[in-house]
Amino acid sequence: MAILDPDRLLPSEPSARRVARDLYTLVRDLPIVSPHNHVDPAWFAGNEPFTDATELLIIPDHYVLRMLVSQGKGFDQWGVPRQDGTVEVRDKRAIWRAFADHYYLFRGTPTRLWLDHVFQDLFGLSERLTPDNADHYFDVIGDKLADLAFRPRALFERFGIEVLATTEGALDPLTHHEALRASSWDGRVITTYRPDALTDPEKPGFAERVEQFGDLTGEAATTWAGFLAAHRVRREFFRSHGATATDHGHATARTEALSPSDAAALFDRALRAGLSPDEAELFRAHMLVEMARMSVEDGMVMQLHPGAMRDHSPGVAAAFGSDMGFDIPVPTDFVHGLKPLLDELGHDPNLTLILFTVDESTISRELAPLAGAYPALKLGPAWWFFDSADGMRRYRELTTETAGFYNTVGFNDDTRALCSIPARHDVARRVDCAFLADLVVQGRLDEAEAGEVAGDLAYGLAKRTYRL
Amino acid sequence: MAILDPDRLLPSEPSARRVARDLYTLVRDLPIVSPHNHVDPAWFAGNEPFTDATELLIIPDHYVLRMLVSQGKGFDQWGVPRQDGTVEVRDKRAIWRAFADHYYLFRGTPTRLWLDHVFQDLFGLSERLTPDNADHYFDVIGDKLADLAFRPRALFERFGIEVLATTEGALDPLTHHEALRASSWDGRVITTYRPDALTDPEKPGFAERVEQFGDLTGEAATTWAGFLAAHRVRREFFRSHGATATDHGHATARTEALSPSDAAALFDRALRAGLSPDEAELFRAHMLVEMARMSVEDGMVMQLHPGAMRDHSPGVAAAFGSDMGFDIPVPTDFVHGLKPLLDELGHDPNLTLILFTVDESTISRELAPLAGAYPALKLGPAWWFFDSADGMRRYRELTTETAGFYNTVGFNDDTRALCSIPARHDVARRVDCAFLADLVVQGRLDEAEAGEVAGDLAYGLAKRTYRL
Amino acid sequence: MAILDPDRLLPSEPSARRVARDLYTLVRDLPIVSPHNHVDPAWFAGNEPFTDATELLIIPDHYVLRMLVSQGKGFDQWGVPRQDGTVEVRDKRAIWRAFADHYYLFRGTPTRLWLDHVFQDLFGLSERLTPDNADHYFDVIGDKLADLAFRPRALFERFGIEVLATTEGALDPLTHHEALRASSWDGRVITTYRPDALTDPEKPGFAERVEQFGDLTGEAATTWAGFLAAHRVRREFFRSHGATATDHGHATARTEALSPSDAAALFDRALRAGLSPDEAELFRAHMLVEMARMSVEDGMVMQLHPGAMRDHSPGVAAAFGSDMGFDIPVPTDFVHGLKPLLDELGHDPNLTLILFTVDESTISRELAPLAGAYPALKLGPAWWFFDSADGMRRYRELTTETAGFYNTVGFNDDTRALCSIPARHDVARRVDCAFLADLVVQGRLDEAEAGEVAGDLAYGLAKRTYRL
Repeated sequence: MAILDPDRLLPSEPSARRVARDLYTLVRDLPIVSPHNHVDPAWFAGNEPFTDATELLIIPDHYVLRMLVSQGKGFDQWGVPRQDGTVEVRDKRAIWRAFADHYYLFRGTPTRLWLDHVFQDLFGLSERLTPDNADHYFDVIGDKLADLAFRPRALFERFGIEVLATTEGALDPLTHHEALRASSWDGRVITTYRPDALTDPEKPGFAERVEQFGDLTGEAATTWAGFLAAHRVRREFFRSHGATATDHGHATARTEALSPSDAAALFDRALRAGLSPDEAELFRAHMLVEMARMSVEDGMVMQLHPGAMRDHSPGVAAAFGSDMGFDIPVPTDFVHGLKPLLDELGHDPNLTLILFTVDESTISRELAPLAGAYPALKLGPAWWFFDSADGMRRYRELTTETAGFYNTVGFNDDTRALCSIPARHDVARRVDCAFLADLVVQGRLDEAEAGEVAGDLAYGLAKRTYRL
Repeated sequence: MAILDPDRLLPSEPSARRVARDLYTLVRDLPIVSPHNHVDPAWFAGNEPFTDATELLIIPDHYVLRMLVSQGKGFDQWGVPRQDGTVEVRDKRAIWRAFADHYYLFRGTPTRLWLDHVFQDLFGLSERLTPDNADHYFDVIGDKLADLAFRPRALFERFGIEVLATTEGALDPLTHHEALRASSWDGRVITTYRPDALTDPEKPGFAERVEQFGDLTGEAATTWAGFLAAHRVRREFFRSHGATATDHGHATARTEALSPSDAAALFDRALRAGLSPDEAELFRAHMLVEMARMSVEDGMVMQLHPGAMRDHSPGVAAAFGSDMGFDIPVPTDFVHGLKPLLDELGHDPNLTLILFTVDESTISRELAPLAGAYPALKLGPAWWFFDSADGMRRYRELTTETAGFYNTVGFNDDTRALCSIPARHDVARRVDCAFLADLVVQGRLDEAEAGEVAGDLAYGLAKRTYRL
Repeated sequence: MAILDPDRLLPSEPSARRVARDLYTLVRDLPIVSPHNHVDPAWFAGNEPFTDATELLIIPDHYVLRMLVSQGKGFDQWGVPRQDGTVEVRDKRAIWRAFADHYYLFRGTPTRLWLDHVFQDLFGLSERLTPDNADHYFDVIGDKLADLAFRPRALFERFGIEVLATTEGALDPLTHHEALRASSWDGRVITTYRPDALTDPEKPGFAERVEQFGDLTGEAATTWAGFLAAHRVRREFFRSHGATATDHGHATARTEALSPSDAAALFDRALRAGLSPDEAELFRAHMLVEMARMSVEDGMVMQLHPGAMRDHSPGVAAAFGSDMGFDIPVPTDFVHGLKPLLDELGHDPNLTLILFTVDESTISRELAPLAGAYPALKLGPAWWFFDSADGMRRYRELTTETAGFYNTVGFNDDTRALCSIPARHDVARRVDCAFLADLVVQGRLDEAEAGEVAGDLAYGLAKRTYRL
C-alpha cells in the first residue's frame, strides 16, 4: 500500500503525463539547493535527536496550526507554549491523536502533501493518517527519531542537500555556524544576512540594537557613517560564514535614495527623537538602497519579501508571539516602490535583487514586466501561501510569457520544518515538470529543451543565481 | 434530442471524467439547502401561477437584461417597467421572439447554462432555443405554468428544496412568512435579517426609518441605546420566523469599534444634522461591529457582501430603478477593513462571519489567508459575476490550498429567479466534482475522501454553517 | 523537419483537440483584419526591400530586446542606435550570431512562437535556431529579403491582409497614406487618429504643437473653441485617409466632463502658464470626453489603452529613447475613471469605446462587468504583455461568463513587426479555437455554435466593430 501516488501532480492527460514523467525522472534525484530557509542551525551544530511526532511536526509548524485554529481548535490544544511560558496540553500522544482526528481539514492543501511525503518517504508509513492509526504513527515516528539515522546531520545527508542557507539577524553571533565550521562534518550549512531589526526603526528597541551593533563591530554605529560601516563589517562577517545573500522582509517595496545628509538626519532622529510612521517608512526605503549599494560592492545577492501585514491578530501575538500564521498579505506596489532603487542600480551588473510577492495580482502586472526588462531583477519562486501546487502553476503561467524561465531563480523551500524540505522540493519539481510537459504537448517547447529547463528550474538556476 | 450534455462541466480527460461522474452521482440528488436568496416569499404564501415565459424568465432577470442592454437592446424593448410606471412593449410573445433572436449572445455564459437547464429539465423542451422555435417555447412554457404542478409550492417540492432563506429588510413585517407559518404547507421558507437600511445613514430617509423602527419595536430607537435595542428586538422577531442569519451589503469591508459615546454622538448627528461621507462610512463600519456583537449573543450567522458600486449608471437608475445589472465591482480591502472587528471578535466561538467578494484579486491575497486563520471567518461561495463555471473553478483553485474546503460554506444561489435554483446548484455540484476529480487523478486526494468532500460542499457545509 | 507543431496551442486531450482542429480549419485561412497596429506606412508607400535578419527582426523589436537586456545583454550589443546617433555594434551577422546564442531565453514566450512562425512559414527554415545554424539563418533570410516577393506590398498580399490600420499622430501629414492612395496598389492600408500629443499638456512642446495644429487646420487652435474645431478638422482629414478609429494612450482611465468655461480656462492655463500634474490629468480626462463626443458625431470608434507607466527607466529613455520595453503596467481604475464619460455617453448608440488593460485584475472585476452592461463599451483583446497564449486564454476565461463573446472585438496585433502579423493572428485563432473546443467538450457550447463564434472572433467582430 502507499499513501503517495507516484504520478501525483503530473498532468492527467496521458500524453502530457508521459512527457512529465520523463522530465521528472531527469530531475527527481538532483541534489537539493536550499538557498533560503529558516531551519535552526543549532540542529546541525548539536545534532541532537528530535523527540516525537508532535514536537517535530505539529507544534513548530504554523501552516498546521493556523488551519487547526481556523476551525476553532486554538493553539493551547496543540501544546503551543504561551509567551508567559505556560503550556496547556503536555501529552504529546494525546495531541497527536487530536491531530489525526482533524487531518481531514488539510485535504487539498500543500501541508497534506508535505506531511504525507514525510510519513511515507521518511518514516516508511503506508496508510493515510486516520484516527485509527494515530497511535501507530506516533510510535513509528518516535522509534525512528530515536535512531541515529534520523539525527539532523543524517537527515541532511539522506535528503541529498548540497547546500542549505539558514537566515540570521544582523546581531546574531553565528555561534552554530561557527561550531559547524569547526566540526568535522562536511554538510554545507551557510547563513544569510537578515538586517531587518537594524533597518526598521519601528521595531521596538532599535536604538539599543544600534548600540549593540557598534559594540559588535567596533564602529561608531550611532553615527550615520558608522552605522553603514557596521553593516559592511557585519556583512563581511556573515560572508565569512558562507553567506552569499541578504534577506529583507519589509511591509512594502518602497525604496528611496535620500541624500547622505537627509539620510543621516533621519537616522539621528530615529535614534534620539523617534520617527513618525512616514519617516520610518522613508528610512526603511532608503536602507534598501543602501543595502543594494553594498550588494554591488560585496556581491551579496539581495532578496526582498514585501507585502505581509505581520501579526494581524494582536491577541494571538500577545499570547503566542509572532509567526503564528496570522500574517496576512496586502496589496503591494512594486512599480513605484522600486523605482528609486532601479533608477540608480537597475542596470548594475553586480546587483541581483530577487523579488517575492504574496499579492498575486502583481505577478503579471508588475513583477514579470519588471524582471523581463531590468537586468538587476530576478523573480523568486511562488512563496508562502503560494508554495503550493496550484500557486506554483499560476506563477509559471503568469511569469513565463513575459519574463521567461531565466529571470526566475529556481525553488526556495523557505521552511522551518527540516523534514519537509525534500517534500517541498519534490512538489516544485513535479509542478514545473507538469507545466513543461503541457508546453511540450501543446507544441510550445521541444522535449529536449524542456529537459534542460527542468534541470535549471530544479537545480541550476538556484545554484547560479545565489552564487552557490 | 437534448439541450443539455449529461456530462456538462465535467473534465474532458476520460479518467478525470470517470471520477467526476462518480462523485456527481453521489451528490446530484441531495436536497437543496438554499441559505441565501432573494426570491419573493409572496410566491409561496400566495401560491399563484406564473403567467408566461417572458414574465418568468426575462423581465425580472438582471443577468438576462444586462447582456441584452449591453448590445444596444435597451430595457424598454424587453417590457421592463419604468419608474414612472410606463411599459413600452407589452406583447410578451413578441418580447420572447426578440429574446430568441438574441439568445446567441449568451453563449459561454452561466445564464445560458441556467436557462437551458430550466428549458429541458423543468419544461421538457428538447431543442436549443432559436428564432424558429421561439413560439413553440412560449407556448409550451405558458401551458406548463398554467398547471398546478408549476405553482411555486409545487416547484419548491419538485426542486427538492429542504430549506430556503429569503432576505428581508429590518422593517419588513414578514407578512408572507407569517402566512406561511400559519398555512398547512410544510415547505421550509425562512427569512434573513438584512438591516442595511438601518445601518446606512446615507440611504435616503434614514431618520424616518429610525422613527418607524421605534414604532415597530416599542424601543426609543432615536437614542443610541434604544436603536441597538430595536435591532435586538427585530433580530429576535426575524428568528421567530426562522432566520438563522443576517446579511450585510456594504460598499466596503470597513469595520470600526467606536467607544459607546462616540457611536452615540455619531448616531445623533446622523439623525439630526446629517453625516459627511466619511462619518457615514464610520457609522456603517461601527454598525458591522455592533451586528457582530449581537451575533455573538443570539447566534445568528453574519454575512458580509462588500465591494459593489451600486447604480453605476445614474440614467438607468433614474429610469428603471436599482438592481438592473449596473452594479460594478470595485477593489475591496478586507485586511485593514475587517481588522477592528476581528481584533474584538475574530476568535469568538459564537461568531460566524461569512465573507463574499466580487474582487477576485482578494481571494488568494486576503480572504483565504484570513479565513485560514481566524476561527470566526468563513468564505462564502463564488458570488454574483463569479457564480459561474469558471468563476467557481477559480474560487476553488484560489481558496483550497490556503483555507482548505472546511473554511468554505457550500453553495448560495443568491437568486431572484426561482426556476434557476436547481440549475445553479447543479452547476456548483458539477464544478466542485470536476475540481475534486482533478485532485483525485493528480494524486492529491483519495477518491473516497473526495466523495465525502463532495457531499459536504453540496449539502453538509451549508446546513452546518448556517445552523439549518 | 519542422520547427512548428501543426497542432500547437490546441488542447492536449484528444477529444478537445479534434474539435479544436476542426474549428481552426474553419478560421485558419480567413483574411486578416488588422484594425490596430504600428507598422510603418512608409514601407508600403516606398515598397523598398528589408535588408537583413538583424535589421528586420532584432533591432526594432522591443519584445526581443527587453528579454536580452534583462539578462544583462544591453541594447548596445544588439546594434540599437543611441539617441546621440552612435551605434556600438554594426556587424549584423555578428549580432545575429549572438542572438542565436541567446535564443533559449525565449523558451515559453510569445516572441519565440512568433519568430518560429516567421522562420518556418515565411522563410522556409526547418530547424530551430541554434548557434550552429545561425549563419545559415542569416543567409537564407537575407537572400529571401532581396527577392521581390518579400517586398512590403508582396508580404501584405501573401499574408492575406484585407485591411491594415496604422497609427499616426494628429499632426502627421499622412504623406505615406496619401502616396498609397495615389498609387495603383490596391492594398487597403488606412490610418488611425492618435491625438495624445494634443490632448496631453504634459508632453513637452504642447503649446508649440497647438500652434502647428492651428496652422495645419486653419482654425484658431489656441482658443478652446478653435482647438476643438481643429480636432474635428483633423479627424475628418484622417477619415479621408481611411481612418475609422481613434486611439488614446493615457496613463489612467480617468475621464471628466468639465463645463465649457472650466475646460476653456484649463486649456488657456495649459498654453500660457502650464498646469500642475493634477490639472494636467484633469485636462486629459476632459479631452477623452471631448473625443467621445466627436466620436458620437463622426462615428469614429474610440480606443483607450491606459495603465502603462512609460519609460520606467530614465537611463534607458535618455540613452535609447522611448518604447524600448521599459513601460511597466500599474493598477488601473476603470470603474470610477470612466464614470463621467459613461454617465454622459455610455448609452449613446453612436459611441463605441474599446477598452484595453495591462492590469489583469481589472478584467473580471471591472471590464467584463462594465462591457456586459454599457452598450457603448467593448473589450479590446488581450494586449501587450498578454498578447500571448496563456494571456489570451485567461482573457477568455475572465471575460466570457460576464460579457459573453459579443462584447469583445476580435484580435488586434498591435505590432511594429510586419512579419509577425500572420503569426500573431494565428496564435489568437488557435487559442480561441482551443478555448471554444474546451467549451464544446464540456457541454457548454454546441460545435456548430462554436464554429460561428470562431469565425466572429477571427474575423467578423473586428470587421464589424471597427466599421471596416
